Amino acid sequence: MPQPIITLTTDFGTSDHLVGAMKGVILGINPNAHIVDIQHHVTPFDVLDGALTIGSVYPYFPLRTIHIVIVDPGVGTARRPLLVSADNQYFVAPDNGVLSMVYDRDPNAVVRHVTASHNFLEPVSPTFHGRDVFAPVAAYLSKAWATESFGDEITEFARFALPKPKAAEDSLKAVVLHVDTFGNLMTNLRAEDLPEATVATGKIKLKIGAKSIERFVATFGEGNNGEPVALIGSSGYVEIAVNKGNAAKALGASRGAEIILARTPS
Amino acid sequence: MPQPIITLTTDFGTSDHLVGAMKGVILGINPNAHIVDIQHHVTPFDVLDGALTIGSVYPYFPLRTIHIVIVDPGVGTARRPLLVSADNQYFVAPDNGVLSMVYDRDPNAVVRHVTASHNFLEPVSPTFHGRDVFAPVAAYLSKAWATESFGDEITEFARFALPKPKAAEDSLKAVVLHVDTFGNLMTNLRAEDLPEATVATGKIKLKIGAKSIERFVATFGEGNNGEPVALIGSSGYVEIAVNKGNAAKALGASRGAEIILARTPS
Amino acid sequence: MPQPIITLTTDFGTSDHLVGAMKGVILGINPNAHIVDIQHHVTPFDVLDGALTIGSVYPYFPLRTIHIVIVDPGVGTARRPLLVSADNQYFVAPDNGVLSMVYDRDPNAVVRHVTASHNFLEPVSPTFHGRDVFAPVAAYLSKAWATESFGDEITEFARFALPKPKAAEDSLKAVVLHVDTFGNLMTNLRAEDLPEATVATGKIKLKIGAKSIERFVATFGEGNNGEPVALIGSSGYVEIAVNKGNAAKALGASRGAEIILARTPS
Repeated sequence: MPQPIITLTTDFGTSDHLVGAMKGVILGINPNAHIVDIQHHVTPFDVLDGALTIGSVYPYFPLRTIHIVIVDPGVGTARRPLLVSADNQYFVAPDNGVLSMVYDRDPNAVVRHVTASHNFLEPVSPTFHGRDVFAPVAAYLSKAWATESFGDEITEFARFALPKPKAAEDSLKAVVLHVDTFGNLMTNLRAEDLPEATVATGKIKLKIGAKSIERFVATFGEGNNGEPVALIGSSGYVEIAVNKGNAAKALGASRGAEIILARTPS
Repeated sequence: MPQPIITLTTDFGTSDHLVGAMKGVILGINPNAHIVDIQHHVTPFDVLDGALTIGSVYPYFPLRTIHIVIVDPGVGTARRPLLVSADNQYFVAPDNGVLSMVYDRDPNAVVRHVTASHNFLEPVSPTFHGRDVFAPVAAYLSKAWATESFGDEITEFARFALPKPKAAEDSLKAVVLHVDTFGNLMTNLRAEDLPEATVATGKIKLKIGAKSIERFVATFGEGNNGEPVALIGSSGYVEIAVNKGNAAKALGASRGAEIILARTPS
Repeated sequence: MPQPIITLTTDFGTSDHLVGAMKGVILGINPNAHIVDIQHHVTPFDVLDGALTIGSVYPYFPLRTIHIVIVDPGVGTARRPLLVSADNQYFVAPDNGVLSMVYDRDPNAVVRHVTASHNFLEPVSPTFHGRDVFAPVAAYLSKAWATESFGDEITEFARFALPKPKAAEDSLKAVVLHVDTFGNLMTNLRAEDLPEATVATGKIKLKIGAKSIERFVATFGEGNNGEPVALIGSSGYVEIAVNKGNAAKALGASRGAEIILARTPS
């Protein structure tokens, strides 16, 4: 048996004790756990950013991986802690939609409201359920794998749809979902939203504010010096990039920026 | 036997080879070690920040965990390397007070001056004892667990007390100890420093510079839009927060900022 | 047998799913792999910065460690993926020189062009070979260790020399290779480039722009308040530092800044 894998996705940052405390709690309960950092720089309080991260990552992990996902502005309020079984993996998270992409991918996801408080670290701090609720639930799960012992299944829970591009006359109004370390702008446009000619001709008509993107390429290195180009990113979304440059800076665009895609690119 | 756990807490940052070199040294000596990053963004040279981190984290780790704690502006000078046994765990660190909270929690801590240089990586760089002294000491300890072989016990070593709030007429003068990723301000006030009525009434009188905090709540989500509130944080200290906002920015406050708590909050 | 170790060195940053996706792919193929983060904040697209990181780190890792090194502005173009055996360790990286310091240290390095695409994650995204090429190659290697099955050996591949100091009349013109978290400036000068008297006298004549560094010390703590000093850093290069301060800020210098070393320091 390989070690049980427990991953961490949070908006806690990496400059204090928060993530370390969670790791300690996990290893204190199950010293055999293999803890894997996904990332801790989800935009603070940004449930969509957290949903995109875990949704883009979990399909690559092995069966029985346990993912702790914490973007939790409602910590300590009435929002429920969840334990979700989906795609033969497990997810421990607050009930605020941060698992929406998991529910999308597996319509048979089993969602439980975690109520078995003997699994919690008492006294539970009202401000740090990562340490006192989510980490111990994941750690105990990694020892006995008995999901039903944590609480009853529920059928109503928070979920949201990713923002979809909006059709207007001869155009689609889209949005920047995420900006990566390189400044690449990930949009909510997918390949099927592009005019059919785009891939063949390499021509596209995108606008961000006053700036235009006119060339569609396969990868970053095809962009000319300083030229913003569009391409299909590794998550299947259209991205805007500058070869060896920073598209976010070049275009003055950030998360939430509006993008207009002309449907007649000629 | 689970794998031996070795944790890392440093101010080295995560944008060069320093942390990776330490991990290599540990695994070169003990390929079975399970290395756990606590954090590497302790404020540079800030021994108090390092002491707060390890003090808030280690109690959650299992017996026999080995913690490497490096905030070490005096690297290569006469300050001594230490190996400390406390609370059934181990700590490898420079003798500059960074383990003060460990000593506070376990008055029976055994502190050794590490002198057995055959455990070091020779030649020892005068500027990187993390790689050449602390990492190999921790790694060898994780194989044989013989603390006494590393050096003699000492009874005088550097330690400091956390800054305590100072009483003035009808007020306590406190200080911001740490600002977290969300901008929450962790103060050196504890629950017992608050006027008795505070918890019952939810009223408090805190001042940071010209700004006032007037409401005491249980968790972040109870704050109104943009309102700075006070609460008991997960480490037991009073924190000042803005619900889904950044208190540090809203109040223009950072580490070291002075806080005045009125003891008659009505 | 200890777990196979796979390290990660990238310029992907730590604020999205990229690193997590690679970890998932590795563990999906080999759940027993022990993944070790070296760093993910290599300066974007900066192959020299990546080469310095892995070159400074790998010699400390145990035999058979597999290092994934990705600084890859040419992802998806004709540049080849490589699998290198050197110093009894393995390196998976794009063929752009990022392994130059590995080739320097082991002239007998065996370099293979990875062509066995049944090891890739199909369809291979043209923009994320970290996930679809390098991670799976490393993970399959960690199971069967058969390097020859990944592709043929090649003898011509990209490599570069570290920039060397240039001799002028009575001086050496050097350069800042890297700035660390503390603001220490790592230069391309080595101990042997210094005038012989420097170590004995503690005197040096360095210029960065209009600023002078006049004292050579053994470690940071010997510097006076605010004084920039020179020392031999832990990688063997001359560094410029300010004791408990930030030399980069104090001297207004960053990566690439020119340094003049007088060869007659008296």
